Amino acid sequence: MTERVALYPGSFDPLTNGHLDILSRARRLADKVVVAILENDVKTPLFSIAERLEMIREIVGDDPATPVLSFQGLLVDFARATGATLLVRGLRAVSDYEYELQMALMNRRLAPGVETVFLMAKEEYSYVSSRLVKEVARLGADVHGLVPDPVLRRLIGKF
Amino acid sequence: MTERVALYPGSFDPLTNGHLDILSRARRLADKVVVAILENDVKTPLFSIAERLEMIREIVGDDPATPVLSFQGLLVDFARATGATLLVRGLRAVSDYEYELQMALMNRRLAPGVETVFLMAKEEYSYVSSRLVKEVARLGADVHGLVPDPVLRRLIGKF
Amino acid sequence: MTERVALYPGSFDPLTNGHLDILSRARRLADKVVVAILENDVKTPLFSIAERLEMIREIVGDDPATPVLSFQGLLVDFARATGATLLVRGLRAVSDYEYELQMALMNRRLAPGVETVFLMAKEEYSYVSSRLVKEVARLGADVHGLVPDPVLRRLIGKF
Amino acid sequence: MTERVALYPGSFDPLTNGHLDILSRARRLADKVVVAILENDVKTPLFSIAERLEMIREIVGDDPATPVLSFQGLLVDFARATGATLLVRGLRAVSDYEYELQMALMNRRLAPGVETVFLMAKEEYSYVSSRLVKEVARLGADVHGLVPDPVLRRLIGKF
Amino acid sequence: MTERVALYPGSFDPLTNGHLDILSRARRLADKVVVAILENDVKTPLFSIAERLEMIREIVGDDPATPVLSFQGLLVDFARATGATLLVRGLRAVSDYEYELQMALMNRRLAPGVETVFLMAKEEYSYVSSRLVKEVARLGADVHGLVPDPVLRRLIGKF
Amino acid sequence: MTERVALYPGSFDPLTNGHLDILSRARRLADKVVVAILENDVKTPLFSIAERLEMIREIVGDDPATPVLSFQGLLVDFARATGATLLVRGLRAVSDYEYELQMALMNRRLAPGVETVFLMAKEEYSYVSSRLVKEVARLGADVHGLVPDPVLRRLIGKF
Repeated sequence: MTERVALYPGSFDPLTNGHLDILSRARRLADKVVVAILENDVKTPLFSIAERLEMIREIVGDDPATPVLSFQGLLVDFARATGATLLVRGLRAVSDYEYELQMALMNRRLAPGVETVFLMAKEEYSYVSSRLVKEVARLGADVHGLVPDPVLRRLIGKF
Repeated sequence: MTERVALYPGSFDPLTNGHLDILSRARRLADKVVVAILENDVKTPLFSIAERLEMIREIVGDDPATPVLSFQGLLVDFARATGATLLVRGLRAVSDYEYELQMALMNRRLAPGVETVFLMAKEEYSYVSSRLVKEVARLGADVHGLVPDPVLRRLIGKF
Repeated sequence: MTERVALYPGSFDPLTNGHLDILSRARRLADKVVVAILENDVKTPLFSIAERLEMIREIVGDDPATPVLSFQGLLVDFARATGATLLVRGLRAVSDYEYELQMALMNRRLAPGVETVFLMAKEEYSYVSSRLVKEVARLGADVHGLVPDPVLRRLIGKF
Repeated sequence: MTERVALYPGSFDPLTNGHLDILSRARRLADKVVVAILENDVKTPLFSIAERLEMIREIVGDDPATPVLSFQGLLVDFARATGATLLVRGLRAVSDYEYELQMALMNRRLAPGVETVFLMAKEEYSYVSSRLVKEVARLGADVHGLVPDPVLRRLIGKF
Repeated sequence: MTERVALYPGSFDPLTNGHLDILSRARRLADKVVVAILENDVKTPLFSIAERLEMIREIVGDDPATPVLSFQGLLVDFARATGATLLVRGLRAVSDYEYELQMALMNRRLAPGVETVFLMAKEEYSYVSSRLVKEVARLGADVHGLVPDPVLRRLIGKF
Repeated sequence: MTERVALYPGSFDPLTNGHLDILSRARRLADKVVVAILENDVKTPLFSIAERLEMIREIVGDDPATPVLSFQGLLVDFARATGATLLVRGLRAVSDYEYELQMALMNRRLAPGVETVFLMAKEEYSYVSSRLVKEVARLGADVHGLVPDPVLRRLIGKF
């Protein structure tokens, strides 16, 4: 049995409870799950990379099994650099699925040894996306229960 | 029997015959249907909020059963302010459906007393979106039959 | 304000908590919601029409606002016979949506005065279908929480 | 690091190269992948359970990391019996996806400790289903390259 | 310029106005369009192959550019036998599309020289399928306008 | 037999092997296939119209059966100007399909004599879009095999 390393990439601007749910499920597949923040992915992010690193580390704690990193460049290069052989993606709606499938096929071509696995978040998070959370929080809605507390505090600070 | 108020929210930039068709169907569900123009929804609108209010009022007339308003902020807050218990949305393609479902679940969480109902426009309007109408009108296509006359006149004026 | 009557048609073999959730939402749209069991819809039903009528009546009670009936023939004919102007359908997955759309367009053609409205069940019921419930109950799974108690008791009796 | 056991359930009537591709990908997630033939799943199977067990064993060989079993009853009960904490499913088209999602949510409810993971077969197998293979083989088409050789030989024997 | 022959395969049990619309569009692509009735496709057909041949010939007339034939066996073998290099399929809903795509990929593998082209029926026929027409006609609905007159007469005769 | 002219419109920023595959399939439907680059379609194109014209001409050669042109304005006007009666579009994922269907219905309304036909690219190109190719090439990935050589050389020159 070799150590299995998974990469969970995303913008996490901000991390939602849906992301957290996927992360805890990914822990069942791999001995180590690297949370990998894509730099330059969101055009005008609400939170800086530094803020996102800080928030996520506060949430997942100092567990060596879930390091939190940010990166630039090709995802599959970062996977190789971290020794990851699994890419973890959450599935929600069918429209996600289409784009995810294209990305997964492209990544497979670029790095055949890295396998993309899809996990399903709890059905109660099926509508929770970072974009929607920001959209309604900006308009004054209470998003308690949709994002972890460290995110909630900072969201309130922003708006 | 209490008076039922429905909210029909949208950008309506501009209102199409598909929107008008949904509006007339919504009249069967509710005693009053408030047409609610979302301010700030379209980034660079073709018509100003004032122009859209004027056009839609010209089209639906002075009927107290279909007031036309614009609003800012959370949709569900506006629903509460107007006493609406129904949110009306038109369904066209599957891709609409996905996003609509997410919005509806989010709105249900924010305001459990407000129910989203989906209606289907006539099949001949299945391809008529404000975006597509603007796109082809800009390039000189005749969009007669796709938008009401007051919109058609103003579209011609713009291009 | 005229009395609004809605028809909620289905096989209900058996009624699930998802159905019950849609029914209570439909109550917000109409003054009366007729639960209409389609005879001859399921080829080899688990419960007879008589059993289904009995179960559903036990569940919804003797409320004149939610009569429970069964019928044969065209749905739109039954809508006319009961004075219903609304057809209520629950939406779950995209594949449902496709078939529902076809049926709704056909029904609109057959009876333009009857409007189909789509409602969304709670997300926690998104995977609860009569078929799946029967499938897993038959194999010994506990379906407590997925169907109302009167259904649960009878399901246990069957298997 | 504990031993991770995955279950790959299916009818496999017959096993296709698409199944084989998913199986080899599942090997990257788990130390042991149990191929689990569902008895009673296909109404009128082409191959008996005994024939399917024999064929698949011939294909995957005597590797203790990929035992081949058949079972009756609830999938999640079989997962528990074999110590599996992962359920592996292949994804192809959107229509698959819908049904798979419902099954996965139902299985999660019945056994929260068993996680469903979705893997994507090679794009060249995106159209290869057991049903389609049987359909065209029955009509005399050459299905070489779509199924492993031990399956091909037996398919030719059947028709 | 060589003569282009297209094959339009289907069960046509019975032919609908949607099929007829696709057929007339296919005429723009090819010099000859063979209407090809699949024998044995529908398990319990309403109309026999002889009745379907007769009805469709009555509808399309004696035009050598649209011969009407029935066939057994592999579609691509029949394409080769008739010299067809195009397979014509109508697209309606997304669920159609999935299955059609799988079939088209399989047919491409079996006969790379035969190209599948998808055409879109008029949007008013988007809900008209042979199955649905039979279903509602059986229950007494008027399907005038959904099927050609020769079909309408025979449908009335059947029920 | 009249000469059939097809139009294959797109941004082609840049042309991929998927586009090339569709182009060669379109040749089976029409005597002449005009490759039509939409000016102003991509907001910030990577390649200028002049570069795209040059690249595609280098790839398809000087064949009078596949002229390469660019155009502004309505697609259907350009179709009329070139005598084209067929519009060719490639189909990949379901999400494409939705948008394509809307466009096709709009174009049919604007020019009933111009028929849209959908073709399927090889399954191995199902994930190859201009956008994705640019995205990963920008990050340093090798896109050899996804785009023709003249495109590959220029992509390398850009990044």
